[in-house]
Parts: sequence; C-alpha cells; structure tokens
Amino acid sequence: MIRERHLFGPGPSNTYPEATSALARPLLGHLDPVFLEVMDETCEMLRTVWGTSNARTLPLSATGSAGMEAAFVNTVHPGDVVVVAVNGLFGQRMCDVAARCGAEVVPVEHEWGRPVDVQRVVEAHPSPAIIAAVHAETSTGVRSDIAALGAAKGDALLVTDAVTSIGGIELRADDWGIDVGYAGTQKCLGVAPGLAPFTINDRAFERRVEKPQSWYLDLGLLGGYVGEASSSSLQRTYHHTAPTAMVASLHAGLARVLEEGLEQVWARHESAGAALQAGLQEMGLELFAAEGHRLPELTTVRVPEAVDSAKVRRRLLEHHGIEIGAGAGAYAASVWRIGLMGPNARPDAVLLVLAALREALDHA
Amino acid sequence: MIRERHLFGPGPSNTYPEATSALARPLLGHLDPVFLEVMDETCEMLRTVWGTSNARTLPLSATGSAGMEAAFVNTVHPGDVVVVAVNGLFGQRMCDVAARCGAEVVPVEHEWGRPVDVQRVVEAHPSPAIIAAVHAETSTGVRSDIAALGAAKGDALLVTDAVTSIGGIELRADDWGIDVGYAGTQKCLGVAPGLAPFTINDRAFERRVEKPQSWYLDLGLLGGYVGEASSSSLQRTYHHTAPTAMVASLHAGLARVLEEGLEQVWARHESAGAALQAGLQEMGLELFAAEGHRLPELTTVRVPEAVDSAKVRRRLLEHHGIEIGAGAGAYAASVWRIGLMGPNARPDAVLLVLAALREALDHA
Repeated sequence: MIRERHLFGPGPSNTYPEATSALARPLLGHLDPVFLEVMDETCEMLRTVWGTSNARTLPLSATGSAGMEAAFVNTVHPGDVVVVAVNGLFGQRMCDVAARCGAEVVPVEHEWGRPVDVQRVVEAHPSPAIIAAVHAETSTGVRSDIAALGAAKGDALLVTDAVTSIGGIELRADDWGIDVGYAGTQKCLGVAPGLAPFTINDRAFERRVEKPQSWYLDLGLLGGYVGEASSSSLQRTYHHTAPTAMVASLHAGLARVLEEGLEQVWARHESAGAALQAGLQEMGLELFAAEGHRLPELTTVRVPEAVDSAKVRRRLLEHHGIEIGAGAGAYAASVWRIGLMGPNARPDAVLLVLAALREALDHA
Repeated sequence: MIRERHLFGPGPSNTYPEATSALARPLLGHLDPVFLEVMDETCEMLRTVWGTSNARTLPLSATGSAGMEAAFVNTVHPGDVVVVAVNGLFGQRMCDVAARCGAEVVPVEHEWGRPVDVQRVVEAHPSPAIIAAVHAETSTGVRSDIAALGAAKGDALLVTDAVTSIGGIELRADDWGIDVGYAGTQKCLGVAPGLAPFTINDRAFERRVEKPQSWYLDLGLLGGYVGEASSSSLQRTYHHTAPTAMVASLHAGLARVLEEGLEQVWARHESAGAALQAGLQEMGLELFAAEGHRLPELTTVRVPEAVDSAKVRRRLLEHHGIEIGAGAGAYAASVWRIGLMGPNARPDAVLLVLAALREALDHA
C-alpha cells in the first residue's frame, strides 16, 4: 500500500523531511507546557512568513478552505457588502462562503488566467465593508498584485487568500494592507495538509462579529488559547483539542524554511518555476496564465490539441509516480497544473517533470 | 524539545504505533487513486466502529468539535426546536453551537456527574426537531443511555456526541436510533487529534439544510468526495484538500482496533477502567461520576481536601512524564480526569498511574 509519489500537482506537495518526521514524534497533550511552547513558536514563525506583527496569527485546526470560512465568518455582518475579485475557482468559492455569512456579494468577474484588475475591483462599489482577493490563484496559476489592492482599498477590510503563495513568493501582509489572511500548510510550506495559517489585524478584529455563526472558527474564543494568550501557560483557556501532531509538523516545516531564509526560499521557487516554464515552452507547449503574472510555484499549461489529458496524467502517475493536476472548472481537460512547491522547488524536479512529460506525450 | 509523555488525561491519548508511523509515510495526493482507496477503507472501518451501515460515514477534516458543528449546521433549520441534554461541558457547548445555527434551544440541565435522564429530556418539548445528547461526557466521566433515548425520541432526529465513546465502549448507532453522530480520533481510537469521524443516516440527510451556513462542513458538498461517492475514483468531486497524512493514520489506527476486535477492545477498556477505579477507591479517593454510570475509559476522581490539584498534576508531569487532566468548568480544581484510552487501556498503565498518583499525593 505504501507508494512514493512526486507530488507535482497543485497541492499537497511533498513535505520537508523535518516536517514529516515531526509527525511521528511522541504525541503531546494540547495543554502540555512543552506543546504550548511549540505553539507559541509556531505562531511567531507564522508571523515571519506572513510578514506581519499581528498578535492574532495562528494555525487554525482545519485545512485552508476552513481558513477562508474563518475569514468571512468573523468579519461579515449580515447585509455587509463584500466585493470579491473573481479570477478563478477560489474567488468563486469566496463568493459562496461570504454569501452563506449573509453578505451582499459583489463579484467582479475576470477572465480565467488573468490577474485581478485593481481598478475594476475598487470601483465595483462605493463603500464595501470588505474587499476580497486571491493572491495566488491555484486554479489558474496567476499572481495578483495585492499591494496595489491594499493601497486602493479605502476603508474596506482586505481579505486575502494566500494558500498557494505563503512561503513560495513574496508576501507582506502588513506592508500591503492585508487585514485578514488565510493560507494552507500543504503547498510551499512543505507540510502535510490539515492546518490553516491565519492572521487578522487589530482593525479587522475590532470590527469582527461578536458571536460568529461558527463556534469552531470563532476567533474571539480561539484567542484565549493561542495568538493573544498571555505568556503563562496556566492562563490558557481550553477551546478545542488542537491537532498537536500537525502543529509540531508545521513548527518543523517553518523552522526549516526560516533556516534556509524566507527570501532564499522565494528565490528557489522563482528559479524552479522559471526553468519549468522555459522548458515547457521549448517543448512547444503553451502556458495558460498571462505573461508577467505567472506563479513560479504553480504553472498552468494548455493540453495540446488531440492529446488525452487524463491519459497523460495516468501515465505519469503509473510509470513515474508523478502526480500533476488536471485543470480546474471549465479547463479540467484542457489545462494541466504543475506545482513545484516547498522541497520540490529544485532543479532536479524541473528536469524530472519535463523529461517525464516529454515521454508521456510521446506515448499519447 | 522531544518529550515522551504518558497521556493519561481526557485526550489526546497516546497513539497506536501503527497510527503514528502511518503519519510519517510518504504523502499521497488527495485525489490519488491509492489515497481514495485508503479513504474508502477508512469510511468502511468507521462504519464498523460506529455500528452503522450509513453510506455517509466519513472523517471530517477538523477535530471533534467541528464534528459537533457539522451535526447542527447540516440539520438545524432556523427556528427549529433543539432539546439538548446538558450534563456537562459538551452538552453546554451543544447549546451554544445549535443556537448559532438559529435553533430555539431547550436545554435540559442535569447535575454534573449524573447521566442523562431520558424521561425528562423527551418530556422537555412536545415536538422537537432534534434531541441531542452526549454519550460519554468528557467533562464528568459519565456514560448515558443513548439506546433508551433513541427508543423514546419519537420523530425527532437524535444527534449524539461519541467523541469519548467511539472505540472505547459499546456504540451501536443504527440499533440505538442515532441519526447523526460525531466523534474524535484522539481518544479511544488511539490516533492523533485532527479528524472528526462523522455519520448521518438517510432520514437526517433528507431533512438536512439545503445550503448550510458552513461551506466547509456542508455534507451535501462533501458527499461528492467521500461517503456516497461512486466506486470510480474519476467521479470524485474536489471539495477541499483532505488531510491525507491524518487519514492514513486513522486508517492504520482503525485497522489495529479491528484486528484486535472491537468487542475485545471494549473489554480491554472496561477492564482497565475497573481496575483503576478500584485502585483509586482503595487509596481512599472518592470517584466523581455516579456509580453505575462511570466510563471505563475516563475516570473522574475528587481531589482530596487540602490538596493542591495543580501541584499534583505538575509533579506527575515533571517527575513521571504523566499527564492527567484537571476538572472541567466549576470542577477545575476539585476533580482530576484520568483517561486510559486506546493503547493506554492496559494493566501496566493502571499500575503506573496509581503508583505515580500515590507518590505525588505523598509529596503534596
């Protein structure tokens, strides 16, 4: 049953060895002083990768999509106008989630494969409570300019999806004006899926919903256990049982990333992505995301006409143990998504995926 | 930083070695055919430990408390009457969670340490939409008779918290009339915290909320990925990224439990709990939970007068690496909670915790 895979899809990625072995360490209780230290250090390292000094920066006990839910559940008051930049699947999902929180959603639709048009987004409504956008669209491989959106947002809160950007490309929550951000562990951070790194600043916290419709994701309650907790472990309030093995793993993964250096890790992703994209184009393949807005960590490429997308992916998986992703939504069969994230952002991974794709296309 | 602990508190428990090592196996993608097989087998084994044939039996991608939220979010229509049997902290939490879903909550308060009074609960309202109760109250160490509640519930849906009972004591969801049940992995199943085993029958699913306020826990959407999925992995719909390492670990833990045999595992918990409770009484300590309703897997014992509860717990942790729990709520300083769950339901663990507690009390 044990299979080793090269996880070159849109996530999960392969994990850093330190993150993997931390999972199998002896388990700690969620109120153990030693674990609380691990949690505190994890929150501190998360502040570094988020580029924030927000006290309320913590790993939520669920996957990235729950991070999205936490962002809206804690900030959307019934009837609030939420402008959502939609340039892919995760922007669409934001609309769904915000609507379930009682928002009046104003979607600003973009062609898939294009970045967010900041001007159109800020002009979509005169006084939105929230503006929301995805930094790195996992469905299309596109990077949007969150700094520009932050500069133009006015009084609105800026909610940002950084699931596929955190630990992979430049991300500066405070400098860019991100008020609420959520991410995932299973992409560029090189940790298994299961936690959602989350950050919220004072401005957003002060405007929060007093009693959100979600108890599990209620940041007011979570704050008693992590983030804003006092330094004494005896003061911690029990909320829910933190997934201690996963937090230990995130701790180890973050330590590895910061030991290498955040900017060095970004540069490594940049370099692997550039090499992959050049190699794909040399093979005559066409990239999907708009030039100048391509994510290095996640490359989208058009499936050549007359090639059976699923057959190629199956050959890669079965012959080479390589997973790449199908496209999302309407592009399921016409686009591939190739991720080189975390430990996979390396030259040898670039060579391998290019060689394997060449071989699989020869057999297609 | 690595510490080995005897996790003899209310959870998390120590994990089965099979569950631990599965965490560190090479990671699989959440749509990998091999992983989908692991997921299917996990759901099937969960059916066995739940005592159900419900198609919609699956591990939710969050901890047990999110299971509670999923139960109410998917079944409570605005204004629905929800009768909650409250005989501890988790019954209280059910009231909070159900109210956030728009329920008209009718709490039926019990003295802590007492089991649920079925008669009072079913007479609390003439036609509730939902009756909810905790099978094994983690805050008090009390077992309630869910079978009797199921027999008396009438047309209401029965929501049951089995976080601390699953895999530890008899649990028969179908025979007992449980319509919706949620549990945790970190207690008697001997797996790290991070997933919520969940089950819902057709009757409850048909009455479900079409578009629940939670997108993350929307069972209608989750069903496309697990539970009711067709046998072909190609038909799976992406919802969120499943925490694949945790699911592999749950798979391994469940396999271990079922290899030993579910009834044998129950008997092992029964026997360890009985020995612990006898030993505590021989030491002159007084048990907290009402006689005849004591959980074997989680024992509550009164802190002797003039003994500093926190000091004893600290000595156990620092000298012997043993974690036991403080009491919950108003009993924080006056009750200890000692769990012998999963791999810890063994005679040597009984001897160890009794000896260590004796030593710590001598120093108190």
